[in-house]
Amino acid sequence: MTSPPAEAPGTADIRAAAIRLADKIRRTPVLEVRGEDFGVAARVVLKLEHTQYTGSFKPRGALNALLTRDIPQSGVMAASGGNHGAAVAWAAARLGVPATIFVPATSPPAKAARIASYGAQVHVVDGYYDEAVAAAQTYAADLDVTSVHAFDEPAVVAGQGTLGLEIREQVPDASAVLVTVGGGGLASGVTLACRDGGPFVVPIEPTSCPTLAAALAAGGPVDVQVGGIAADSTGARRAGRIAFEVFREAGIGVRTVSDEAIVDAQHVLWDRCRIATEPGGAVACAGLLTGVFVPQPGDTVVVVVCGANTATLP
Amino acid sequence: MTSPPAEAPGTADIRAAAIRLADKIRRTPVLEVRGEDFGVAARVVLKLEHTQYTGSFKPRGALNALLTRDIPQSGVMAASGGNHGAAVAWAAARLGVPATIFVPATSPPAKAARIASYGAQVHVVDGYYDEAVAAAQTYAADLDVTSVHAFDEPAVVAGQGTLGLEIREQVPDASAVLVTVGGGGLASGVTLACRDGGPFVVPIEPTSCPTLAAALAAGGPVDVQVGGIAADSTGARRAGRIAFEVFREAGIGVRTVSDEAIVDAQHVLWDRCRIATEPGGAVACAGLLTGVFVPQPGDTVVVVVCGANTATLP
Repeated sequence: MTSPPAEAPGTADIRAAAIRLADKIRRTPVLEVRGEDFGVAARVVLKLEHTQYTGSFKPRGALNALLTRDIPQSGVMAASGGNHGAAVAWAAARLGVPATIFVPATSPPAKAARIASYGAQVHVVDGYYDEAVAAAQTYAADLDVTSVHAFDEPAVVAGQGTLGLEIREQVPDASAVLVTVGGGGLASGVTLACRDGGPFVVPIEPTSCPTLAAALAAGGPVDVQVGGIAADSTGARRAGRIAFEVFREAGIGVRTVSDEAIVDAQHVLWDRCRIATEPGGAVACAGLLTGVFVPQPGDTVVVVVCGANTATLP
Repeated sequence: MTSPPAEAPGTADIRAAAIRLADKIRRTPVLEVRGEDFGVAARVVLKLEHTQYTGSFKPRGALNALLTRDIPQSGVMAASGGNHGAAVAWAAARLGVPATIFVPATSPPAKAARIASYGAQVHVVDGYYDEAVAAAQTYAADLDVTSVHAFDEPAVVAGQGTLGLEIREQVPDASAVLVTVGGGGLASGVTLACRDGGPFVVPIEPTSCPTLAAALAAGGPVDVQVGGIAADSTGARRAGRIAFEVFREAGIGVRTVSDEAIVDAQHVLWDRCRIATEPGGAVACAGLLTGVFVPQPGDTVVVVVCGANTATLP
């Protein structure tokens, strides 16, 4: 096994994050279902991370980042498709500091409303995630404000990695974990947490937001066209450097799923388990249903359901 | 402690049901939240029974009933606001026997569609639950068919009681369990399972379907007007005899909540936990939010989320 890249958090960082967050975030439950409910021969366990505070996994990374640095009087700032922004706003409210969040106009209005509900100042910017990032950078140029990156920052990756530690505790016999990729913060954090004897981590991303696939093909993060049904949560234009390095070093390839497969997965999760998710929250499940990852009989596959900030049922 | 009424299942019956159902139903997870998220000082644990097969707790009782009796060639039959019918249809499909289900026209079309999706024959009857029961009885008069009552039958109550055993295993320090009352099958089953050192069980019903309140006031089950937002799952016109006897002997009074409180609870469950429920599935939560049961600091309160067969988000 090779060492993680210097920028990636180490196992100790993830364990420290878990201790730091223990009484502040939810330990989300797991639901064991019959494999046949999802068309596979293996045992399937759903990690219900969409029941986390703010409706996605993002508070793990956001709160860990805020708890590990000094926060100036101007408070904190983030650019986000919505879920990270809600998490930073939630974490800031919990710590009693002001938050300013930039979201793209392509994200659902319900996400901006949720961010505002935590008392943050919300700026809506034309475009996708990267346009929101640019607007945030312009805004922050002359301000003493703490910025929290949505995925490419060690404290954020370590926070997301706590999800992997929980899975190892809750499903000790897991053989594989399927996890959605946007910028790669969650997927790389879980992968780092699952080294040294943990389950194999399979990153899954939408074909319409192929940032990690492009990065692995190009030998480094590159800009790609993003769009499609899950763009509000997986629409980073380029993968994080940390995520790229983690998956390159681990030799793990990313699987992709179509927008149609994501919608199908949303329907299956609702129809068979009464779990409502946003498109990005169903990407990992789509990977199982479409067979881009095929478990073997006897395997125990954990599927991370990572977000439910939607305004409609499938 | 008094003995349960003769008709009520005993502890051994509930334990036998749990063994019978063990690999056939889902062991649904629990989600621990902060009490402050629900406006109380106690620890709050949600039992996510809406993730059970068919979207409600009903398969526990339905499958237990079918597994404990001979089923003739004409198969099984049930009248139901929808959830019990779906459970009987699901259980029949699992056992490979035909099912005929009568549902009232006042139930949501999505429930009839779900029943049909399990291969059952569905009859829609004008009125509420009791009109469906009458139509089913007429239909079955000359047929050799096994009827499964929605709540007032020992095998059904024993099956629902397995939910109580699970709660005792998953939350061993629970001090109280809040549970919805329709006809009282779930509430009485959980109460029976929690005797002998288990948590205190608090039955909660809509003011618009006050069957157990009326039964306890009248000294026996009596017909009441039913209606309101949760009538499709809690709209039995009179409480079950078993439920009445269980609560009368235990000396436990029922708490009631308004339709507005139920809608509020649906919103809170979605807003704070991304749990989508039908109105009946949020009745127990409404009991906590409105303070008809007030836990003390140090208490651990389990709130049963028992159904999610809805077509819309709050």
